[in-house]
Amino acid sequence: MERSVSSLPQEKQERVWRALDGLQIEIPSWGFANTGTRFGKFIQAAAATNLTEKFADASEVHRLTGITPTVALHVLWDLPGGEGSVAQVKELEQTYGVRAGSINPNLFQDQEYKYGSLCNPDPVVREKAVQHMLASVRIAKALDSRDISLWVADGSNYPGTQSISRRIGWLEEALKATHNEMAPTQRLLVEYKPFEPAFYHTDIADWGMAYSLAKAAGPQAVVLVDTGHHALGTNIEQIVAWLLHLGVLGGFHFNDRKFADDDLTIGSIDPYQVFRIFHEILSYKTWNKVHEDQIAYMIDQSHNLKGKMEAMVQTVMQAQELFARAALVDQNLLAELQDSCKLVEAEEHFRGCFYTDVRPMVAEWRQSRGLPANPLEALRTSGYVEKITEERAAKNSNTQSSYA
Amino acid sequence: MERSVSSLPQEKQERVWRALDGLQIEIPSWGFANTGTRFGKFIQAAAATNLTEKFADASEVHRLTGITPTVALHVLWDLPGGEGSVAQVKELEQTYGVRAGSINPNLFQDQEYKYGSLCNPDPVVREKAVQHMLASVRIAKALDSRDISLWVADGSNYPGTQSISRRIGWLEEALKATHNEMAPTQRLLVEYKPFEPAFYHTDIADWGMAYSLAKAAGPQAVVLVDTGHHALGTNIEQIVAWLLHLGVLGGFHFNDRKFADDDLTIGSIDPYQVFRIFHEILSYKTWNKVHEDQIAYMIDQSHNLKGKMEAMVQTVMQAQELFARAALVDQNLLAELQDSCKLVEAEEHFRGCFYTDVRPMVAEWRQSRGLPANPLEALRTSGYVEKITEERAAKNSNTQSSYA
Amino acid sequence: MERSVSSLPQEKQERVWRALDGLQIEIPSWGFANTGTRFGKFIQAAAATNLTEKFADASEVHRLTGITPTVALHVLWDLPGGEGSVAQVKELEQTYGVRAGSINPNLFQDQEYKYGSLCNPDPVVREKAVQHMLASVRIAKALDSRDISLWVADGSNYPGTQSISRRIGWLEEALKATHNEMAPTQRLLVEYKPFEPAFYHTDIADWGMAYSLAKAAGPQAVVLVDTGHHALGTNIEQIVAWLLHLGVLGGFHFNDRKFADDDLTIGSIDPYQVFRIFHEILSYKTWNKVHEDQIAYMIDQSHNLKGKMEAMVQTVMQAQELFARAALVDQNLLAELQDSCKLVEAEEHFRGCFYTDVRPMVAEWRQSRGLPANPLEALRTSGYVEKITEERAAKNSNTQSSYA
Amino acid sequence: MERSVSSLPQEKQERVWRALDGLQIEIPSWGFANTGTRFGKFIQAAAATNLTEKFADASEVHRLTGITPTVALHVLWDLPGGEGSVAQVKELEQTYGVRAGSINPNLFQDQEYKYGSLCNPDPVVREKAVQHMLASVRIAKALDSRDISLWVADGSNYPGTQSISRRIGWLEEALKATHNEMAPTQRLLVEYKPFEPAFYHTDIADWGMAYSLAKAAGPQAVVLVDTGHHALGTNIEQIVAWLLHLGVLGGFHFNDRKFADDDLTIGSIDPYQVFRIFHEILSYKTWNKVHEDQIAYMIDQSHNLKGKMEAMVQTVMQAQELFARAALVDQNLLAELQDSCKLVEAEEHFRGCFYTDVRPMVAEWRQSRGLPANPLEALRTSGYVEKITEERAAKNSNTQSSYA
Repeated sequence: MERSVSSLPQEKQERVWRALDGLQIEIPSWGFANTGTRFGKFIQAAAATNLTEKFADASEVHRLTGITPTVALHVLWDLPGGEGSVAQVKELEQTYGVRAGSINPNLFQDQEYKYGSLCNPDPVVREKAVQHMLASVRIAKALDSRDISLWVADGSNYPGTQSISRRIGWLEEALKATHNEMAPTQRLLVEYKPFEPAFYHTDIADWGMAYSLAKAAGPQAVVLVDTGHHALGTNIEQIVAWLLHLGVLGGFHFNDRKFADDDLTIGSIDPYQVFRIFHEILSYKTWNKVHEDQIAYMIDQSHNLKGKMEAMVQTVMQAQELFARAALVDQNLLAELQDSCKLVEAEEHFRGCFYTDVRPMVAEWRQSRGLPANPLEALRTSGYVEKITEERAAKNSNTQSSYA
Repeated sequence: MERSVSSLPQEKQERVWRALDGLQIEIPSWGFANTGTRFGKFIQAAAATNLTEKFADASEVHRLTGITPTVALHVLWDLPGGEGSVAQVKELEQTYGVRAGSINPNLFQDQEYKYGSLCNPDPVVREKAVQHMLASVRIAKALDSRDISLWVADGSNYPGTQSISRRIGWLEEALKATHNEMAPTQRLLVEYKPFEPAFYHTDIADWGMAYSLAKAAGPQAVVLVDTGHHALGTNIEQIVAWLLHLGVLGGFHFNDRKFADDDLTIGSIDPYQVFRIFHEILSYKTWNKVHEDQIAYMIDQSHNLKGKMEAMVQTVMQAQELFARAALVDQNLLAELQDSCKLVEAEEHFRGCFYTDVRPMVAEWRQSRGLPANPLEALRTSGYVEKITEERAAKNSNTQSSYA
Repeated sequence: MERSVSSLPQEKQERVWRALDGLQIEIPSWGFANTGTRFGKFIQAAAATNLTEKFADASEVHRLTGITPTVALHVLWDLPGGEGSVAQVKELEQTYGVRAGSINPNLFQDQEYKYGSLCNPDPVVREKAVQHMLASVRIAKALDSRDISLWVADGSNYPGTQSISRRIGWLEEALKATHNEMAPTQRLLVEYKPFEPAFYHTDIADWGMAYSLAKAAGPQAVVLVDTGHHALGTNIEQIVAWLLHLGVLGGFHFNDRKFADDDLTIGSIDPYQVFRIFHEILSYKTWNKVHEDQIAYMIDQSHNLKGKMEAMVQTVMQAQELFARAALVDQNLLAELQDSCKLVEAEEHFRGCFYTDVRPMVAEWRQSRGLPANPLEALRTSGYVEKITEERAAKNSNTQSSYA
Repeated sequence: MERSVSSLPQEKQERVWRALDGLQIEIPSWGFANTGTRFGKFIQAAAATNLTEKFADASEVHRLTGITPTVALHVLWDLPGGEGSVAQVKELEQTYGVRAGSINPNLFQDQEYKYGSLCNPDPVVREKAVQHMLASVRIAKALDSRDISLWVADGSNYPGTQSISRRIGWLEEALKATHNEMAPTQRLLVEYKPFEPAFYHTDIADWGMAYSLAKAAGPQAVVLVDTGHHALGTNIEQIVAWLLHLGVLGGFHFNDRKFADDDLTIGSIDPYQVFRIFHEILSYKTWNKVHEDQIAYMIDQSHNLKGKMEAMVQTVMQAQELFARAALVDQNLLAELQDSCKLVEAEEHFRGCFYTDVRPMVAEWRQSRGLPANPLEALRTSGYVEKITEERAAKNSNTQSSYA
């Protein structure tokens, strides 16, 4: 049982460092903007309100952590001009040294999508939604973005009001059309979610549906796991193992939750679960060939109360440290203990890695890469938040709150 | 086993009619306004956007159903002038023939409540929140409203960030202060909710906490049950039985849900559960003395997709029909079957009442009271929705959507 | 809106009768035996303790209901002699006029299966389990039973103690081997369950896993839905729609639950959900070709407190009546209302069918087929339970293993 | 942010040691016996099958860990002679150096309790159950056991089959009668559980019911929290905070779970939650007076697959280490950060304590008390399990009833 970092054998340290070298995390542009719940938003003076500010903030996170070189973009909010906005994004990439990452279509905000987008019973609305998908693919091509990340918010609120069955067919058609538009190097990430904003049925509700749709769409379609999109109790790491086994694990939206899709900081409620998910990936890579960057690690959180910059840096650090813990697992030893059904010994080794305090080791790794040992402290001493607070304070207008 | 309505014995029919005569349901002013989810609102042209329109709509619902004489008011939205708005409400009562019902303070929308209202660690904010409570009591007095209906949205999103324990004390103080301000005929309804908008801990999370707080506040404080505010699987009718037993069941916020606090139409997902809740009340009243209007039946739903008027009338009808079904239960027979542990026979009688089609009987009752036999059809033929759509269409501006 | 049975148009009545004519339900042999929870069993004097008694009881249920011609058999409990027991079963089929239905292997009771059966890390145990599967296929062949119904209880209780990933491979191998042994007319039904008796990971935990395994096994492998085997909140009818869409819905294990795999009487907790599941099937059949008997309706309940015979008859009646309600839905009308997004009208038609009291109509159908109008009352007046109680009372000190 | 144990300030180390000095954990006699699920038991040769063996095993756990001086006893299984068995227990206390702890009545195993014990509609059965309670109190008195630990398994499986409401009254009577029998120094611990073995309603389903019953019973009745007895998502540490606030936290049954009442090793699924529970207690003790031994820490787990001795020692170590982590929290600093709403800083301090590897410090504390640094390794090298395996192997064909 490992007891302290300093006593870790050289071989373990090297494994952890290799793992850290391989970990890159994409941060979402919308993670720097004001968000809220249906009951209202608490406005932050330092929140970003345009794409330039989002790139600036993302760049600062990358400067501090060194592992967030890409920014997920949201077509509606970040590229309001569609393909016409591409030039501006390229300029921001140059200015801020972080690149456009996954491209996220928006199929839920338009009033026409009241009864669905790709699954709307009205073929006119479906066609509009498909066109938005195709435009998103073209934007991604223009930006050299590999991944189009699709979340379909469609569903229904009451039994009998929509045909669950026919909507499956419409969805398959839409995804095939999208797949046809993609370049051979692009991927379509299909996200699933059990509920919200639809409260009776959601058209892509679980990984089985996302997987079946990806199969129907074509070989470049894969599945996206948002850790908050599961019924309570679901063994998420098992789903990860299955998606790896089936060769369709495209990536993650990381966050944590206690109840529903709470979009809290990763590991803030159940850090052991994150460790187990990372373990499943690292274990699979030990025994099978997986292309290094097959799995896109992305963040999708909604920090209503925490400061945006502070929360993003904390998130990256937390993910990194849990990844390092998982890298401590001795896969050969664990397999041996598992095969001989030495349950308590297997568990003690496994959990012992989780309980090992890797923070000094990760700090060392950061310093060796020319990064601050503690990015959160570095953020505080940098004065960055104070600077943007002052600059942006005037602009952040108030918004009206919903209630239900 | 009852098979059809016409064959129902006279005694049963009378029991149902008596039950129907005793059922009044309060409708919320905000049930006629646009609502949405954190992902945006779908705007309805016919939605009410000011208090006059809300009273007009409520009045129409009461005209059609005959059992909704009161409107729950929301201090922040409906009485923006505080006590100064009372005169306008009284005028609207006169004009529209429906009265102000429960008074609902708002402790969640102000930016100062970011870290809590009555539970905020800052005593200045707590005091502001208490003052809002006291003003709400005074408004209720001025309006002759018996009930102040309190939902505290306070909580925290992350372990360790707030003291769960000390916040209990602050809450007790605030509720005592509120209780002191009330007239002897007033009541404080304390609502509970497990999560949302707070995602780690919510200060009044379950009925045990609401009950303990009510006890601490004083004898006029009772508990409000929102049917959507429970963990999945919770036996809500048992909680109702306990609150009745303890003498603190103050009332309900009715809605239904499949997942979280989905705020769907009552009985739209699990009608048998509503039947069981009504049974628990009617059964308790059979064997114990309960003041006729001790239990306030209120609606709190959020119809994002259904037409507001249509949904409200449907809700009232649905509640009424499930109430009638519960009134079919023969309490003496059931008690006898329960006492002799004839499980299948007890269940068959109980469920047989749920399965009896009471719609014709309720229609007859409506007609006998000079009401439309089918209020929903009457609404459709009345042209009311078309009228308000035309009148209000121009006013309903678009609102910005949140995302997280 | 339908109001009473007598006013139902002829076309509706015919649709319901056709549906009733097509509904057959398989009852499990173990449904007549004593069962319990981990806290103990409450012994019933009338419970069956051998295969002859189980056939006798099943035969009586079929005599009363007319729709239960087959009995699911459990290899370990009912055919302890393996293929050697086939002759006895055939004799009982002759004697009692009910046939052997699905064949259920047992991979959970043997002490060797402590760490798993088909997924055990020990290849010797895996081979033993596979051999049991092959023997079960041969037994099914010998009995002319089409379906081998597989529930794999394997899993692990603690993170890290077993390799989730490698066990997937072992499972695929075992299912392929089983598939190879089957005759072209046979089917392998793959059941899934989220937890119990394993409490951390269960190897076939959800429909996505069952589906993927069925695909890997071969074209005769399909998925079995046990209604109690889902996380709370899961939209089961949507899973049914997906399995129909993918052509792999093999059948059901019917029961109800409030919390976990409670194995209660179908429709006893959430009857509207059962209605919705039946609707999804009937709707799919309206628009697509489905082989009449593709979907095996089976019961899998554990009546610890209700009398075994009474509970079984009640279950069959309840399933039949909910099926009749679902058959009331006018598929053309509903599709039209769905396509035009008339939400409340669609819901009112849909739920109106659920609320229609079909009991008189089902009673008529029964009588027209020479069956008792009310099988439960017929059971009571038959004296059958009193008879078997007397006959079996002496024997039932002995207990048999539980199953659900 | 704490980084490693060696760098911990002296003050912190002392706080942790003081905490460790104050922690005692009671182990259940039934934790050494064979247990299982409703699907069967996997028999362990080393399992204890009589009270002598249980005391021997408990004594060995205490020898290795030094913090388990008492053994919870189960009246039905451990004192089959009732008060007549007391003498044997006293002898075993002398022989093995561990004392009788809480006394656990059994109200669920007798066939007469099929429809309930203290809540049975039959007054004869209720009286029998009350007599068992009174006998349990007398046994506790005779053994100088302070706590009678009551779990009422009563409930119903189907809506309508029992009166939820009247059973509350019967329960109150029974608890009052029990309270009257107690000596002034004794306590009645009232446990709650949402479901199992009853699947529709359980008479004491949540902490609010247990608290209300304790109040009705008398001042010596308090509440027992079994960590596995909550709906998924429940914030257990908040319930603990409330029970402390109300002065009625009597103790715990420790275990962990992923789904339902899985009775797994404490901290094996969600260790951060256990840390948070311990924090709530330690925090409350910082600011309020709590009698040192007011809170009884007890284990109630069911290790079906792990070796009994190994699992028990692992459990005690795991609880102890999580307790030490919670003791690291600087209550003054945390309160300050909470009061100033520095969310991320508060969280980082709080979680930093959880992430600190206390294992070396706890090992030091053990050695300073003359205990093995690693009790689990000490158990392995002691040969104890091999010894009892050999001694007991012959006897364990027999099985004993499970409990959890």
